[in-house]
Amino acid sequence: MNMKRKLRMGMIGGGPGAFIGAVHRTAATMDGLIELVAGAFSSDPNKSKQMGEELQLAPERVYGSFEELVRKEKELPAEQRIDFVSIVTPNHLHFEPAKQALLNGFDVVMDKPMTFDLSEAKELQKIVAQTGRSLCLTHTYSGYPMIKEARYLVNNGTIGNIRKIYVTYPQGWLATFLEGSEQKQAAWRTDPSKSGIAGAMGDIGTHAFNLAEYISGLRVSEVCADINIVVEGRRLDDDGTVLLRFNNGATGVLVASQVLSGEENNLTIKVYGDKGGLEWQHTDPNSLVLKLPDAPIQVLRTGTPYVSDIAKHNTRTPSGHPEGFIEAFANHYRNFALSLLAIQDGNKPDTAWLDYPGVEEGVRGMAFIESVIASGKSEIKWTPFHL
Amino acid sequence: MNMKRKLRMGMIGGGPGAFIGAVHRTAATMDGLIELVAGAFSSDPNKSKQMGEELQLAPERVYGSFEELVRKEKELPAEQRIDFVSIVTPNHLHFEPAKQALLNGFDVVMDKPMTFDLSEAKELQKIVAQTGRSLCLTHTYSGYPMIKEARYLVNNGTIGNIRKIYVTYPQGWLATFLEGSEQKQAAWRTDPSKSGIAGAMGDIGTHAFNLAEYISGLRVSEVCADINIVVEGRRLDDDGTVLLRFNNGATGVLVASQVLSGEENNLTIKVYGDKGGLEWQHTDPNSLVLKLPDAPIQVLRTGTPYVSDIAKHNTRTPSGHPEGFIEAFANHYRNFALSLLAIQDGNKPDTAWLDYPGVEEGVRGMAFIESVIASGKSEIKWTPFHL
Amino acid sequence: MNMKRKLRMGMIGGGPGAFIGAVHRTAATMDGLIELVAGAFSSDPNKSKQMGEELQLAPERVYGSFEELVRKEKELPAEQRIDFVSIVTPNHLHFEPAKQALLNGFDVVMDKPMTFDLSEAKELQKIVAQTGRSLCLTHTYSGYPMIKEARYLVNNGTIGNIRKIYVTYPQGWLATFLEGSEQKQAAWRTDPSKSGIAGAMGDIGTHAFNLAEYISGLRVSEVCADINIVVEGRRLDDDGTVLLRFNNGATGVLVASQVLSGEENNLTIKVYGDKGGLEWQHTDPNSLVLKLPDAPIQVLRTGTPYVSDIAKHNTRTPSGHPEGFIEAFANHYRNFALSLLAIQDGNKPDTAWLDYPGVEEGVRGMAFIESVIASGKSEIKWTPFHL
Amino acid sequence: MNMKRKLRMGMIGGGPGAFIGAVHRTAATMDGLIELVAGAFSSDPNKSKQMGEELQLAPERVYGSFEELVRKEKELPAEQRIDFVSIVTPNHLHFEPAKQALLNGFDVVMDKPMTFDLSEAKELQKIVAQTGRSLCLTHTYSGYPMIKEARYLVNNGTIGNIRKIYVTYPQGWLATFLEGSEQKQAAWRTDPSKSGIAGAMGDIGTHAFNLAEYISGLRVSEVCADINIVVEGRRLDDDGTVLLRFNNGATGVLVASQVLSGEENNLTIKVYGDKGGLEWQHTDPNSLVLKLPDAPIQVLRTGTPYVSDIAKHNTRTPSGHPEGFIEAFANHYRNFALSLLAIQDGNKPDTAWLDYPGVEEGVRGMAFIESVIASGKSEIKWTPFHL
Repeated sequence: MNMKRKLRMGMIGGGPGAFIGAVHRTAATMDGLIELVAGAFSSDPNKSKQMGEELQLAPERVYGSFEELVRKEKELPAEQRIDFVSIVTPNHLHFEPAKQALLNGFDVVMDKPMTFDLSEAKELQKIVAQTGRSLCLTHTYSGYPMIKEARYLVNNGTIGNIRKIYVTYPQGWLATFLEGSEQKQAAWRTDPSKSGIAGAMGDIGTHAFNLAEYISGLRVSEVCADINIVVEGRRLDDDGTVLLRFNNGATGVLVASQVLSGEENNLTIKVYGDKGGLEWQHTDPNSLVLKLPDAPIQVLRTGTPYVSDIAKHNTRTPSGHPEGFIEAFANHYRNFALSLLAIQDGNKPDTAWLDYPGVEEGVRGMAFIESVIASGKSEIKWTPFHL
Repeated sequence: MNMKRKLRMGMIGGGPGAFIGAVHRTAATMDGLIELVAGAFSSDPNKSKQMGEELQLAPERVYGSFEELVRKEKELPAEQRIDFVSIVTPNHLHFEPAKQALLNGFDVVMDKPMTFDLSEAKELQKIVAQTGRSLCLTHTYSGYPMIKEARYLVNNGTIGNIRKIYVTYPQGWLATFLEGSEQKQAAWRTDPSKSGIAGAMGDIGTHAFNLAEYISGLRVSEVCADINIVVEGRRLDDDGTVLLRFNNGATGVLVASQVLSGEENNLTIKVYGDKGGLEWQHTDPNSLVLKLPDAPIQVLRTGTPYVSDIAKHNTRTPSGHPEGFIEAFANHYRNFALSLLAIQDGNKPDTAWLDYPGVEEGVRGMAFIESVIASGKSEIKWTPFHL
Repeated sequence: MNMKRKLRMGMIGGGPGAFIGAVHRTAATMDGLIELVAGAFSSDPNKSKQMGEELQLAPERVYGSFEELVRKEKELPAEQRIDFVSIVTPNHLHFEPAKQALLNGFDVVMDKPMTFDLSEAKELQKIVAQTGRSLCLTHTYSGYPMIKEARYLVNNGTIGNIRKIYVTYPQGWLATFLEGSEQKQAAWRTDPSKSGIAGAMGDIGTHAFNLAEYISGLRVSEVCADINIVVEGRRLDDDGTVLLRFNNGATGVLVASQVLSGEENNLTIKVYGDKGGLEWQHTDPNSLVLKLPDAPIQVLRTGTPYVSDIAKHNTRTPSGHPEGFIEAFANHYRNFALSLLAIQDGNKPDTAWLDYPGVEEGVRGMAFIESVIASGKSEIKWTPFHL
Repeated sequence: MNMKRKLRMGMIGGGPGAFIGAVHRTAATMDGLIELVAGAFSSDPNKSKQMGEELQLAPERVYGSFEELVRKEKELPAEQRIDFVSIVTPNHLHFEPAKQALLNGFDVVMDKPMTFDLSEAKELQKIVAQTGRSLCLTHTYSGYPMIKEARYLVNNGTIGNIRKIYVTYPQGWLATFLEGSEQKQAAWRTDPSKSGIAGAMGDIGTHAFNLAEYISGLRVSEVCADINIVVEGRRLDDDGTVLLRFNNGATGVLVASQVLSGEENNLTIKVYGDKGGLEWQHTDPNSLVLKLPDAPIQVLRTGTPYVSDIAKHNTRTPSGHPEGFIEAFANHYRNFALSLLAIQDGNKPDTAWLDYPGVEEGVRGMAFIESVIASGKSEIKWTPFHL
């Protein structure tokens, strides 16, 4: 990749104290393909300004609102203005900035879940189609090289026809009524006016759901959900389990809980076909376990010569040099950037570069949320996945 | 324990080729408390005779049927006849031998699931109550020292009020239509006339269920089951997932599947309370993981000085000397034997000795089977646990 | 194996409080091939008698000394007297009982290290040769199925020509001056008059040494040892590291230490050839890791269909049912018993049955002790292995 | 850290195909404290130019030699010219660029081992002292948060007085005569004119050595080395083991080998004191195992609230979000940059910022190389560590 220039990014959200904003900035710029040049970091203009100073941005490129960012950047000469926005606000502030950006000629990277509700998601999907712009949704976990490898092994038939998918996402940080304190992360995630109709199912359940569909290539067709509010006083689900039926007849289970005291963030997935099984867990992200009947267990490792080209493409260091969360995150930005640079040059992006989550995954994620919340309230066992 | 004599065991089932019969014999005699002196090893008298010879039993103590065993042993002088029977036949041949043994003055050890159906189980419970005899049901996994420790830690409040229980029992040996070959283990386990109404749920689901209730001290009150026959041509479930509700409001998930290609026998359980979580898995049975919020993960180990007395009592070697499946199995026999010897001497058994699974666990196991099979057929989400 | 009778064992040592005596008894009788019928459990006749009662032996077969045991058992009719002795005394009491037993027509199982010093070991080797009797030395770890598999894979060339062997045996139980208390195990092991010239190197270093030679088929030819007494007041080494040179030019390192606070008993070995490497550790004894260049890591498991016949022969349960320390120990007894029964019947034992450690391993173990203690005192780097 | 500006970096080495150059660039710029503005990427001006274009540097800041870089950058106005150089060339090209940079007013980051030989190292130490400039040596592994934590726990006495240190660095990439092919990495590392007197001991042995001294705070005082060339035709050591004696009387073992077929890069260290032990391995870098006697094993994790401030300072994401090799590398750059920015502003850097490896570690690393190579040739067991 012989680049002529870096893509210019404008960030929306990610002000002081925001965990995920900092991750986005580091991930975006990690590979020298993207530079941060503008931002509307907070709805409070002073906070936005402060952040811009910390990040050494030109003061005139630091804005007090996303509307201002979109409007003023659009007025800049083409060789100066941003190429795309990165939206890292709470859920209720995803749709409008994305819409404005797209309609004004900017591509979009945005955090998940994509929108506040499914109808917004569908509208966004239409806008993407109309404008022909690119949208990348940062479902981090599908950025890991060994997840790419898992998808590759499913695709090439190594484990046969899929029978069963177990995906589990345990966290413990909301095991107590944290939103009662000043904890910013907890506050908006447990607030229906900001998070939407789901808590844990939206925040981490959608990651788990995306991973299951991404690796397997299957689509969930029915769900049976047990959705709970475990911590007294909480307003949104903090725990849930979903029985899954897939479009090929396979079944599965999805667990997402934020009240499992002592758990960190150990997303785990197991996929079994009629010829073998695959296992991956986030605590050891550079290993992929392959179990074939009547054969030694195999452990595939990031950075080795024997993994697929797509896994290699998403790796920076030789085997034995652990890659982590930020690198996985950066893979999405990198693939998005490589694709966008190619498109801007009038070229067709590599298939490998286009392998980042987009608006379709976003719509399905919102449909997942609506389906499981509906199922959680239903006395009937199975609820169709409503898209 | 200064013993005057060994208990005399008569085995019913466990003829040539039976895996679990050999495990029972080894486990029973491991601690020098029990000797095998009689057997009706097969309904085929020649096979029974052959097995008796292999085991060097006196030919006159090897019988052609369990009825003969019970009748003739009863006629022997008290100082010669067996103290108890060990029943290791397929499920449909559990109830009658157990009933005959109990009614004729013998105590009973038997394999799980306890009976062919719930009504048999309840009748057996009555007979135990009437006769006042002892019955031990070999739910192996609760025999592990670290499972004892887990139960102890729940009881003493270390993890607080239980919120969530995940128990998973994956196997792969029935991933193909093995019953189409001559495989004896597969044949009866997939045959409704021998196994009962359940396949995987009876064979391994009951183990998982028992473990969840044993460790937590809770009782399942409702289930929502997804029960499947994955392998074409099979007549009983080989895969299933059950959402659980417990009597304290906790929820959980139980997975039992025998079609997960490449899996061995890795029963795993995770129990979370409002103060912490516990994890145990059968591939590393001498470790128990304790996760408390905002503290290093703790790994408790078999044979250490810091574990509970009940864990120590069920351990034979110092820490670092792995104990395995046979030792766990033997713990039930040992506790059963210590209790029985005490009772025979007119003494009250230690609480620690009485900590083996009995007829009550058997009844609940059969109720579990009936509940989940009923739920699997129901379109309503939750089915009450019907005892 | 259609046996006509069980072998009769007489135990020397293993009185009240002896850890390893109990392991020997359980392991010996585990497979129904051996029964304990006699014993000289202690040099204190009362203690010996007490132990005999606990074990329900006939009082006339419980002796006050090993001399008495040998003499009186010899006088019994052939169909009553013991077939072999099991010697589980401290090191200084190994040679004499073994010698007396062999010279009086009994075979021998004995604990390691074989004798008090190398000259005794060589004399015992001569006696074994003269008498033609069998001698089994219980180097437990070579009894594990996955160690058998490791040796098999080396033999069949899977990892090529061996280049490097790392073997590490960390314990922590002597991290303090335990012999200052009443701890019986610590007392004799740190006493030169009972243990011999070595402490940790004799107690656990010999196990590590044996394992390295057993798996690799190589022989140590030179050593460079760093031998330490870490705990103040101790009289024998409690820690040491030995650089190894093997007869094929390979090199290696052996670590044995009993002062590593917090360590249990995690013997670990790694063997590398020019085509790949093998790893095994005692905390997970049913897994053997095979690393081949540019290929996924392989984990071979006990009880699977793909392992070697010799591994299968030393396994009791299907894969996924952990076998542990007692089973490994029992494998030596079982192989010894199968061999002895064959010999008594005038048959040639199977090669697989003869695969237990014997007098040759015992001599090499004693030579190892003398070599490393000599090297530890030498200022010259390399000391020849003196046999 | 409210920065006014980014530090400007000029890179020496790191041309097309250099693995470690790319890692340096990513790590240096990861935290927004440093920007790459100049480079002499290759001694071939065309290759240097090509690299500069790929990296989108201003053409006039891309130089054909390090001399040119130093000379021309010095001539630039202070607000434009680089602050420091990053030297990522093979070992024989470390000293001169570092010397020139320091003498001309630039600070230095450089890869290890610091120089071609010990005398160069000592001279560089003098130059650093004379010039008062900063020098950071990128011993990556001490940048990991859990290594910081290990050092912290040693310092605060958690494991007591150190008795034993085991450090093992296994690789397999030089298991064959790779330098016979066109492999650039292998070529210079096995060439005495470029690498110096040591191969594996210089390349990875110095990392292991540095880690042992860093965590323990101890200093090696004597070595006994077994240094080998395993692969035929190779000119420098590819394998070695070193017995260590430390200045407090502790002993240890250091293993470094690049011929262990199938191994990746699993640097592992275990440190034992009289009160407990610590274990860390590079395959699971976000866990630190703490073993205290008679207590559950503890696993400390990156990003948790209970770790030390120094560990937290070197962490970017919350617990459960794995940090890897690049982040560890970046920690050294970040601490170097924070220190340098403070110094430039006339402030005293935080202790935590100064915690990066410097010229003293570089001198000790070179002394280690000379000591172990000398010892490897000696017939005397112990060789003093010659500084």
